[in-house]
Amino acid sequence: MAGQQRDISVSEFFAKNRHLLGFDNKRKALLMTVKEAVDNALDACEEAGHLPDIEVRITQIAEERFRVLVRDNGPGIVKQQIPNVFGKLLYGSKFHRLKMSRGQQGIGISAAGMYGLLTTGKSIRIVSRTSPKKEAHHYEIQIDTRKNLPNIVKEATVEVPWPSGTEVEIELVASYTKGRQSVDEYLEQTAIANPHARIVYSPPTGDPVVFPRGTDVLPAQTEAIKPHPYGVELGHLIKMLHETRSHWLTGFLQTEFCRIGPKVAEEICRRARLNPRAHPKRIARQEAEKLYHAIQDTRLMAPPTNCLAPIGAEQILTGLLKGVKAEFFTASTRPPAVYRGNPFQIEVGLAYGGALGRDPRHDEAEPVEVTGSLRGKGKVNGNGPPPATARVIRFANRVPLLYQQSACCIFKTVIDLDWRRYNLSQSTGALPQAPLVIMVHMASVWVPFTSESKEAIADYDEIRAEIKLALQDCARKLSAYLNRRKQQKYQGERRNIFLKYIAEVAAACQALDRRIDRQALIDDLTAMATKVTAQADEVLDDHGRPVVPDTSSGAEFGENTVVVDPDAPPEPGSFQLAS
Amino acid sequence: MAGQQRDISVSEFFAKNRHLLGFDNKRKALLMTVKEAVDNALDACEEAGHLPDIEVRITQIAEERFRVLVRDNGPGIVKQQIPNVFGKLLYGSKFHRLKMSRGQQGIGISAAGMYGLLTTGKSIRIVSRTSPKKEAHHYEIQIDTRKNLPNIVKEATVEVPWPSGTEVEIELVASYTKGRQSVDEYLEQTAIANPHARIVYSPPTGDPVVFPRGTDVLPAQTEAIKPHPYGVELGHLIKMLHETRSHWLTGFLQTEFCRIGPKVAEEICRRARLNPRAHPKRIARQEAEKLYHAIQDTRLMAPPTNCLAPIGAEQILTGLLKGVKAEFFTASTRPPAVYRGNPFQIEVGLAYGGALGRDPRHDEAEPVEVTGSLRGKGKVNGNGPPPATARVIRFANRVPLLYQQSACCIFKTVIDLDWRRYNLSQSTGALPQAPLVIMVHMASVWVPFTSESKEAIADYDEIRAEIKLALQDCARKLSAYLNRRKQQKYQGERRNIFLKYIAEVAAACQALDRRIDRQALIDDLTAMATKVTAQADEVLDDHGRPVVPDTSSGAEFGENTVVVDPDAPPEPGSFQLAS
Repeated sequence: MAGQQRDISVSEFFAKNRHLLGFDNKRKALLMTVKEAVDNALDACEEAGHLPDIEVRITQIAEERFRVLVRDNGPGIVKQQIPNVFGKLLYGSKFHRLKMSRGQQGIGISAAGMYGLLTTGKSIRIVSRTSPKKEAHHYEIQIDTRKNLPNIVKEATVEVPWPSGTEVEIELVASYTKGRQSVDEYLEQTAIANPHARIVYSPPTGDPVVFPRGTDVLPAQTEAIKPHPYGVELGHLIKMLHETRSHWLTGFLQTEFCRIGPKVAEEICRRARLNPRAHPKRIARQEAEKLYHAIQDTRLMAPPTNCLAPIGAEQILTGLLKGVKAEFFTASTRPPAVYRGNPFQIEVGLAYGGALGRDPRHDEAEPVEVTGSLRGKGKVNGNGPPPATARVIRFANRVPLLYQQSACCIFKTVIDLDWRRYNLSQSTGALPQAPLVIMVHMASVWVPFTSESKEAIADYDEIRAEIKLALQDCARKLSAYLNRRKQQKYQGERRNIFLKYIAEVAAACQALDRRIDRQALIDDLTAMATKVTAQADEVLDDHGRPVVPDTSSGAEFGENTVVVDPDAPPEPGSFQLAS
Repeated sequence: MAGQQRDISVSEFFAKNRHLLGFDNKRKALLMTVKEAVDNALDACEEAGHLPDIEVRITQIAEERFRVLVRDNGPGIVKQQIPNVFGKLLYGSKFHRLKMSRGQQGIGISAAGMYGLLTTGKSIRIVSRTSPKKEAHHYEIQIDTRKNLPNIVKEATVEVPWPSGTEVEIELVASYTKGRQSVDEYLEQTAIANPHARIVYSPPTGDPVVFPRGTDVLPAQTEAIKPHPYGVELGHLIKMLHETRSHWLTGFLQTEFCRIGPKVAEEICRRARLNPRAHPKRIARQEAEKLYHAIQDTRLMAPPTNCLAPIGAEQILTGLLKGVKAEFFTASTRPPAVYRGNPFQIEVGLAYGGALGRDPRHDEAEPVEVTGSLRGKGKVNGNGPPPATARVIRFANRVPLLYQQSACCIFKTVIDLDWRRYNLSQSTGALPQAPLVIMVHMASVWVPFTSESKEAIADYDEIRAEIKLALQDCARKLSAYLNRRKQQKYQGERRNIFLKYIAEVAAACQALDRRIDRQALIDDLTAMATKVTAQADEVLDDHGRPVVPDTSSGAEFGENTVVVDPDAPPEPGSFQLAS
């Protein structure tokens, strides 16, 4: 048997297990390919400080064969790196640093290329240009799965009309459908979470779709941080002790970790009963263990958070307003927190009502438009369609997560929240029943995904707690809005009752006392009823349509809140999230 | 940025993402470590034709620190291979061949060692001996995660009292609890699916547990097969064409694949309009594509199945009888089938009733013991505890799958089956409500797991269909048994009614005609009632306890079926599955 023992290359491994990377089926393969290319494109543009301008083109070649082209206006890739970046799994710049970025494993785009090669035999094609002064390089690459090395099929210099950037083209066996979990949905959600990006998308059929830029402000530049001492494990600490260039233990602690200054370093050594001047390489395992426990027992500052660039409540609103037709919008960004030494930050956006409810009048949880009243038609009762259920859209480092919802910490936390406390109906263990879109974003230097295909976030208590707090903050604001709507409805109904009896009352009064002017009395009473139930008027204008407050008016329900007219014509550049 | 681009070693990758390998938390880490070591031990013994004799010992060293030791009586590992097998991820003999085995990726045991090293800084310790004539080799190894290479800390020759085998010891941070998803449950289920193995288990606390051998027959030896043409993809076919040593296309097809003889090879070439004498290396991509389609369009025999060693219905019964206290047992083994060119085989075992129902008398679905009657106590009515729900135990290549049940093809198929057609109650989308254990085993040369931690089987239509057929076969037999019990119950109730009125009838008859002997009439009528409702007697012996048919008696309900006395004292070596 010994003779059969051999190395398994990581490409062979993932070629055979490619469902682990998300290439389970033809439809998902198309999504994954676009996703990996677009994620890389956005990362590249942002790192270089370019406002992203991305082109995505999917061409159908045969029944189950597609060509995916993604081009960005990023800084391009230097010639020597192109083969490794696209023709080798587990290669890249993002794995070893602690900094927020979309990619983190160095697998994605090479895996997409490998899938294309496996299913069609075609090379991955790359054109990249690093500056207008330089030529563009064209490569055709195949991954040698047995060695996990790029095999360069073609290499040339080409002329391109664009100043800098990278263009990737992959041919693959796939299938294309619209709707949930499609390329379309992925790009729509990407546009929501990346309002600074402009994306032009040419689907296999139909007209190109343009997602225009919603803002010209790039996300804040982030900086890589050193590992935080609380997140390091004993085995890793021992390795770091052996590999450090520091000669003193205190120096080691200060240079290899964040949040350890000279005083804290001394304190840790004292706790561990180790000589601060000891040579790190000579620390034995038992001593390292003491050091490890001393670190855990020492109070340290949380890691710096300049490694994170959250979307921000304002931009979340911009994104939601662009892609979701609703009437009430609110957003909330939590301060940074830490899990296992990794800084992270949670953001939540809610969009409620408007076109989200199929037929809001039937929806129990939906405060219906003011009924009857001076202008109104009566309330519609009866068995309408079932109430709309909330929809969760999940993001990690600005990337939409479309699969494995129920395995995701975000989804679980949404379900666990008691939405009934916020005026929504909800069955136990289910999403709230309301015309509601719940957007949750986790930004982190290391998102703990449950699989290589990066579809769901693992369940850490710290992450769950932050998601809950952000959800509660937004839910409170929504609840205030719903309360107001309820009041309006109540006053509307009250006025209805008044109006119903005013004529009767006036007639009766006149019958008792002939001197009473019936019409005057009716007018008086109507005026009084209208005044008492004035709140009912707040929502309807002279045409019987809801009053449209200006977009700043949401402020009364809390910070970062916007109320809009759901019937207003769509803004240019807005779209409707796939459903 | 270019300067930061670098290789990521597969160990670094999995060290950072070790939840992908199942090391999510401390409890699971203990289970995974035992599992990887035991799976390897069983594989090694079977490949060498040794009846497995496995020792598992878990020692608690500190509050959260454990030492796991697993020793087998297998063939041992040759000295030169030890460091790579235990100190390198993606190394092994099982990945590249098509043959049923527990391990398939070459990750497991090295990953367990890596987890131990990361959390405690301690090396993995191996002692292995290949024959009583040779010395045993002792190794202490640490994995160099940056290079994915073993780092030998200690190497020595040692004396051991055992003739051959391998002993692995890993120290790790973990936690130990009993019950579901524990090491205990894993070993119990392993004993059920591997009745040919003897396992001695010393848990951290309490007495050692012995799972004795239920049979001395080893599973059939399996042979590695060549890939089946239907399972090969275009990209892979192109690679094979380039790497083959054959000089002719027909020779290539015959030597690289199974189920292609000279005639079929010619036919494929004709369909593809390719010269059968063409040199494989000179086949261009477009021609390879024609060849690929020609293969798909040609009728081929299913792959050979000597690569599979199913447990077999008889041994499934042996296993279930040992570990599950029930009254009715049945099993079924499907003939081999194929998904994506990979042969596989599905087996199902059911255990019903007996101690599985907490209080069977309250259970609607449970045919209760014959009530009243000549011996009986009355039927107990009322609101007892909720009915028991069926339990699914899943196996892949004889390895229990304890996590991610709801993501598993096996579980989904069980839930999708309409159990109501088989006399059990079931809510839509749920497990049947019955005191039932459903065991499903998939044997394959390549089990399509949904993650590296090998916890759930991916959803292939072909696999689902086979599971369904096996379940239906067993369910039919269970249904026949339940029908019989129902009949018995009905006859028992009928007899009760007769007996209730016999005395009255006899008295009335005597009143009409004094000549009638009341007692004789009572005796006659009782005899008649007993005869008419004879079926009621089948289940109760003279002590009012159910009749125990000999174990072959299940035959009347179908093949491979056993009915036992649930109240009989347990056989030596039997145990009770963790719950």
